[in-house]
Amino acid sequence: MPKSVLTPQAEDFPRWYQDVVAKAELADNGPVRGTMVIRPYGYSIWERMQADMDRRIKEAGARNAYFPLFIPESYLTREAEHVEGFSPELAVVTHAGGKELEEPVIVRPTSETVIGEFMAKWTQSYRDLPLLLNQWANVVRWELRPRIFLRTSEFLWQEGHTAHATEEGARRYAKRIHEDVYAAFMRDLLAMPVVLGRKTARERFAGATNTLALEAMMRDGKALQMGTSHELGQNFARAFDISYLSEHGRQELCWTTSWGSSTRMIGGLIMCHGDDFGLRVPPRLAPVQALVMVVKAGEGVEAAARQVVSDLLARGVRAELDARVDTPFGRRAVDAELKGIPVRVEVGPRDLAEGAVTVVRRIAGGKTSVPLGGVADVVAGSLDDDHEALYAAALAHRDARTTTVATIDEAAEATRTGWALMPWASLGPEGEASLAETGVTVRCLTLPDGSVPQAEDDPDVIAVIGRAY
Amino acid sequence: MPKSVLTPQAEDFPRWYQDVVAKAELADNGPVRGTMVIRPYGYSIWERMQADMDRRIKEAGARNAYFPLFIPESYLTREAEHVEGFSPELAVVTHAGGKELEEPVIVRPTSETVIGEFMAKWTQSYRDLPLLLNQWANVVRWELRPRIFLRTSEFLWQEGHTAHATEEGARRYAKRIHEDVYAAFMRDLLAMPVVLGRKTARERFAGATNTLALEAMMRDGKALQMGTSHELGQNFARAFDISYLSEHGRQELCWTTSWGSSTRMIGGLIMCHGDDFGLRVPPRLAPVQALVMVVKAGEGVEAAARQVVSDLLARGVRAELDARVDTPFGRRAVDAELKGIPVRVEVGPRDLAEGAVTVVRRIAGGKTSVPLGGVADVVAGSLDDDHEALYAAALAHRDARTTTVATIDEAAEATRTGWALMPWASLGPEGEASLAETGVTVRCLTLPDGSVPQAEDDPDVIAVIGRAY
Repeated sequence: MPKSVLTPQAEDFPRWYQDVVAKAELADNGPVRGTMVIRPYGYSIWERMQADMDRRIKEAGARNAYFPLFIPESYLTREAEHVEGFSPELAVVTHAGGKELEEPVIVRPTSETVIGEFMAKWTQSYRDLPLLLNQWANVVRWELRPRIFLRTSEFLWQEGHTAHATEEGARRYAKRIHEDVYAAFMRDLLAMPVVLGRKTARERFAGATNTLALEAMMRDGKALQMGTSHELGQNFARAFDISYLSEHGRQELCWTTSWGSSTRMIGGLIMCHGDDFGLRVPPRLAPVQALVMVVKAGEGVEAAARQVVSDLLARGVRAELDARVDTPFGRRAVDAELKGIPVRVEVGPRDLAEGAVTVVRRIAGGKTSVPLGGVADVVAGSLDDDHEALYAAALAHRDARTTTVATIDEAAEATRTGWALMPWASLGPEGEASLAETGVTVRCLTLPDGSVPQAEDDPDVIAVIGRAY
Repeated sequence: MPKSVLTPQAEDFPRWYQDVVAKAELADNGPVRGTMVIRPYGYSIWERMQADMDRRIKEAGARNAYFPLFIPESYLTREAEHVEGFSPELAVVTHAGGKELEEPVIVRPTSETVIGEFMAKWTQSYRDLPLLLNQWANVVRWELRPRIFLRTSEFLWQEGHTAHATEEGARRYAKRIHEDVYAAFMRDLLAMPVVLGRKTARERFAGATNTLALEAMMRDGKALQMGTSHELGQNFARAFDISYLSEHGRQELCWTTSWGSSTRMIGGLIMCHGDDFGLRVPPRLAPVQALVMVVKAGEGVEAAARQVVSDLLARGVRAELDARVDTPFGRRAVDAELKGIPVRVEVGPRDLAEGAVTVVRRIAGGKTSVPLGGVADVVAGSLDDDHEALYAAALAHRDARTTTVATIDEAAEATRTGWALMPWASLGPEGEASLAETGVTVRCLTLPDGSVPQAEDDPDVIAVIGRAY
């Protein structure tokens, strides 16, 4: 294996992260503080995330729409907790079209309010419910300590917003998104184990009555929130008058939900699967699953490499040719490592003389000489194994760094390197507050069997405690 | 056919347009002046446009990336014509994160400048060229007279930006996008005939050396620009120092292009194909190609309708079931007309007793009784015909409203109802300027065989003159 060009994880994890983002050509800092440029390779990963997530969202019955970037300032203030939650992060347009605006407009930090306004128009009768909307968009939250993909002043996301006739309907749908869309996506596409739980009152979304979250452990033992699904009760329905005429002829307030996942997941992906040689992209997600490399020019080498690419494509493998022989092979190999392409197929004159090529696996590791005719089978098999291997490795890492504790002091100690699990009944909001002073938070509340507690006061509830991104 | 719920086109075309947009549930005005809400049905049309266009752009070798929404004010001023072109339309963020910003930031009206800045970093050597980038994003241009889809203060688009080693390379690529991507997309997906041409100096993009455009005629005889592809010469390369080390070891400036198409095309689609009963969506574009409607409840009716849906899906037709029998059938039929769904399959107890259903064609018109087993064939055949029929009708309409003229007065007269064609050698920039005073513009310069002139001074060049959206 070539020597790494990255700062080792063990030496300086944040530096390693920055190195990977830059050297794998995922993203760059934008010229305005806190913004980012997502480079073609990073964006191709996002596109594949987006396509898969979009399919799952549509299967859950939601329809995509698009709401404006600009929101009147007055909308934000209608739901008291909401405006309090977002005020410090807002970007404000005061001038447009060469003039000062009469009322400044906000660049959306999320679209709850403007979507609430339109839901109120569109839900007239019980027949219009549930109203299930989703939007893919950019949002802006001014960040004082920006970090690429993780906390950026502008990011890309999907935000779902739904209105239901009953509290139970809203609750069921928020849960469906949490489990059948988000958790399934993270497990089946990203090969990431996530803990499903509910947030404590302290950590809830501004304006929500319940926030369901998915927490993943990064290689440094810290937690990253990968997505959230909120029950908003009737708070937004009341503020925006989202109501409907029931079957019994009564005007009733709706129950609403919202849920979101963002480009932040790319950061999670990097920090969950990456190693000292770069990113490792789970094969189902990988834009390029197999890079077929011409090692050096030679009689019939490029033709053989092209044949391997078509064999792989015919087998359903996303394969690409790298025939840039004017760039040194070592540099190209390091680049493929950095980008985390699951499999490299190296086609060179020497192997080829014996009818073979070399298959190099990024995830499981190892180099094998494979006869030309068998490449497609070997690669396809590797990709299947790799998904499972990545998931298992991430889970083993999480288990190894998770400690069950009985006291707040033990929790503080355990979260230096990973997560602590502690009965919520013993910790409670006061314990939570005291941990928070040292930057340690309750990531979520969960149950021993991995399911989500209906309420905080269930005696079996466990607090998952950690330091978070 | 049910009576129209729209203002007839002949009575008041702009009003008809607004009616269609509202009643087909395509879009709504946003709360901030000039912005729009794209409703689920409108957005599903945009998603299909986007998917098809994206595929064509990728086939042309460009890769997607994402650049920030916010641009430092100083970037805009680096290319003199560019800033002049955009200044009056800019939206400016002056406050963010609870404070006044030291340097105000612009909400992107287009990303030439910020992409230029990054191209300069990424093009080091001739090996990095051509650099072919595309971005799907929202942009903001403050509109004084907004009109939904056509001129909105925020719109969605794709913008391509490329850098090349030679002027010829840039020219060829701008042409490739113009012809192989845009024109092909408009013809093959939207069923819209477009005139391909170059803009006069007066109508060119701010900072371009050549602008290639595609112009379509609307039902009222006015022109709509459906997309543009610009050669930017070395103007942006100079302003942003986009240069490369050539094979000969010399530092050279790049030649750049940019090209864009937007949600404006939805407006073009409505006004090119719509009639007094609503939108007519070309079948290849249609999110729902066949709506299978349960006319009224009855023994086995819904089951039969479901069977028709599966037969259609199996045949590759995008079919959907409408079993909302608690809404009057007439209202649902009018709604399907308004939305321009190409085919309705009406399944009712009476027909069903005779083993038949009614197929209603939105585009060619007409109702036919079809035996249950034959529905899939009939519908698939109709959809093929409908694409051709829509294209032919739009072309015939354009021909009927286009007049070849010899004088400026004749041109002014002809453009009351359609387009005028006049030799550019006779019209010239002075004639163009005098027409412009009456709101009539040269839409593009083209050649008699439909190809694009290399230069304005070719004596065969024809000016396509009209009133434009």
